[in-house]
Amino acid sequence: MQVDQRPIAVFDSGLGGLTVVRELRRRLPCEDIVYFGDTARVPYGTKTPETVLRFTRENCAFLLRMNPKCIVAACNTASAVCLPGLANELPVPVFGVVAPGAAAAVEAVGAGGLIAIIATEATIGSNAYKNAVFQIDTRPAVVQVACPLLVPLVEEGLDESNAIVELTLERYLGPVRRLSPAVVVLGCTHYPMLRGALASFFGKSVVLVDSASSTAEAVASTLGDSGVLVGAARNGRLHCYVSDNPRRFQTVGSRFLGESIHDVVRVCPEELACGRLSLGRTRASA
Amino acid sequence: MQVDQRPIAVFDSGLGGLTVVRELRRRLPCEDIVYFGDTARVPYGTKTPETVLRFTRENCAFLLRMNPKCIVAACNTASAVCLPGLANELPVPVFGVVAPGAAAAVEAVGAGGLIAIIATEATIGSNAYKNAVFQIDTRPAVVQVACPLLVPLVEEGLDESNAIVELTLERYLGPVRRLSPAVVVLGCTHYPMLRGALASFFGKSVVLVDSASSTAEAVASTLGDSGVLVGAARNGRLHCYVSDNPRRFQTVGSRFLGESIHDVVRVCPEELACGRLSLGRTRASA
Repeated sequence: MQVDQRPIAVFDSGLGGLTVVRELRRRLPCEDIVYFGDTARVPYGTKTPETVLRFTRENCAFLLRMNPKCIVAACNTASAVCLPGLANELPVPVFGVVAPGAAAAVEAVGAGGLIAIIATEATIGSNAYKNAVFQIDTRPAVVQVACPLLVPLVEEGLDESNAIVELTLERYLGPVRRLSPAVVVLGCTHYPMLRGALASFFGKSVVLVDSASSTAEAVASTLGDSGVLVGAARNGRLHCYVSDNPRRFQTVGSRFLGESIHDVVRVCPEELACGRLSLGRTRASA
Repeated sequence: MQVDQRPIAVFDSGLGGLTVVRELRRRLPCEDIVYFGDTARVPYGTKTPETVLRFTRENCAFLLRMNPKCIVAACNTASAVCLPGLANELPVPVFGVVAPGAAAAVEAVGAGGLIAIIATEATIGSNAYKNAVFQIDTRPAVVQVACPLLVPLVEEGLDESNAIVELTLERYLGPVRRLSPAVVVLGCTHYPMLRGALASFFGKSVVLVDSASSTAEAVASTLGDSGVLVGAARNGRLHCYVSDNPRRFQTVGSRFLGESIHDVVRVCPEELACGRLSLGRTRASA
């Protein structure tokens, strides 16, 4: 087996992508991971495709400096808006979260079943999940719902069953529940934090597809098939970079990651945007 | 009276500052106004002081190209974090929203009364309102509460009395209401959109200080005293620039402004950040 010591690079608009990192570390514990969270410009989900593409290009340019074996766009909005187009511009394989989530949804939905996609405004506006489902199978019915308040609710720590969360789910998803979907796709990396509340809301008969988990599965299996894993029994390291507020990333991010974050370095947003990509001056260490 | 045709320049992280523009246009209907909303990088309220200062400097550099007679930082976070320091760097007078709001609160609070400041995390973290109150009068008691979810709730259009808004107000402000404040300062330019809900929540005996209105009053009176108003009976024009999504700015912004927005030009965020400040390619016209 070929040994490839290069890290897996992962980015998101903020800290939601850490739910993908959590799943990657569960499946590939020996791999090094470099994470970039664009916390100075978060959120992406309410911004236009042109702006999301510009930011995503800059994030990838930064990560390429780390000589990664691949890049994971652990951001549904960036995946939906920029892939597969952006993949052609980059010298390493790029994984998004949309295609694996759509594949898992198609696999889970029975004949005549309905797939409900819930995501940010930009992801829903792109129709990326719907198109990805129909590329695999044109038979399932698909409904899509934008839920803009769910990200701020999760960021505020309202991830447990809570009256504000319940009312917000009812507001966005009441009409969808009445259609009795067979599968609900969590099309935003923040939403796994609401998994319990969503499971209660939709009931036991609904399959919740977590695109973070499906993506990690796809990355692990593709890298394994290509023979580019580390191939040594060791603990993979995680290095995190953010464009703003490393302290908050450490505190809130640890909840998303399910383990403590030890090392976060701030990257200058100004240099990111100008292509003068060097490391910033602020470091938050645990 | 001296005639000064130069526009009044106003900026905010997004569209909240339009509540200040609405109050300015009510008081100074003949003045031209140039507005910049940094919608590609909104919100500022959850970001660090260094990042807010960087963005604010870039916004002011852009507005100075319009040859304004003054700049209004219609953003509580930017005012709290960057003023008065930034004013010394700029060649025109700069008005913030914090000092006028604090002055109005001190004027409204009676002897022994309590002032409650409600605002974003960054504004509260800066202690700017509290410090501004104590610079005028050290006698009032001051409490401060960060309410991060209120901006997304307003942006989502939940500005009327609504169960989600009520529960969120109870969550953040229940403990403050039990302290029976005499004055509540709306320390974020989005909050005037929740004025009705806040008035019901706190009851009739509480004075709500709207810093948007206090700021417009301060700008009008200072410019009038300096003799730099247009001095002609005509309808002042409003030109708006944003760093992303001019269509959404037009639609949602009109609610904030209380009148239709006719002309919004997008400015390239990349050029903003690099100091290469030219106008973008996207224009949304009504």
